[in-house]
Amino acid sequence: MTGSGSSCGACKFLRRKCTTECVFAPHFCYDQAATHFAAVHKVFGASNVSRLLLQLPVDNRSDAAITISYEALARMHNPVYGCVGHIFALQQQVASLQEEIDILGNLMAISTIDAADCRISQEDGQRL
Amino acid sequence: MTGSGSSCGACKFLRRKCTTECVFAPHFCYDQAATHFAAVHKVFGASNVSRLLLQLPVDNRSDAAITISYEALARMHNPVYGCVGHIFALQQQVASLQEEIDILGNLMAISTIDAADCRISQEDGQRL
Repeated sequence: MTGSGSSCGACKFLRRKCTTECVFAPHFCYDQAATHFAAVHKVFGASNVSRLLLQLPVDNRSDAAITISYEALARMHNPVYGCVGHIFALQQQVASLQEEIDILGNLMAISTIDAADCRISQEDGQRL
Repeated sequence: MTGSGSSCGACKFLRRKCTTECVFAPHFCYDQAATHFAAVHKVFGASNVSRLLLQLPVDNRSDAAITISYEALARMHNPVYGCVGHIFALQQQVASLQEEIDILGNLMAISTIDAADCRISQEDGQRL
């Protein structure tokens, strides 16, 4: 049950009375909670999520509820890849950035050699 | 039903007869399929996954089954963050690589200016 005495988003979606023992209430009491919980219910099932939350220490439940909602919304948005699509995109971004670092590293090496050559040649010129 | 006539991993786990219409069979017929399906069942529920797969075009079901298994196994391994933990780690890696690129970019700029200064100074020396 939320602080104001009204039902949490999960209980609103499930059309049930929200009690002080409601496992969802502390994590589904914001504006779009009922909409997000609809996705959670469709993808994971309310009972699976309730069980998962109850198995966790109280301090970890908020993070678990957030990440479960994130996964559920991602799966609704992209039924084939869900949030794994984000993982693929990030892995490609990492590979591309690493490639950019390799290129910059090679350019740096060339530039350092050029600068050293220039200084040696400058010193030789001064000696003559 | 798998090619060999034996039950698929999902039906083995659910202890039911695997038929030619089994929606799981084409995607859960490898060595560890029953173990993976146990995670899928615990996290998502077999009926939710069956519905999700049936709503997809046949060509997309394999990717969906793979990503659902991936999410389920990640959630079993890390009940608080699931595969979203991988997303956080990859986002941090991207931020760190971008920082490295910025540093290399600045070093490259300094090195280019140094090399240009050296060449100008060399040319000036040759003129005298």
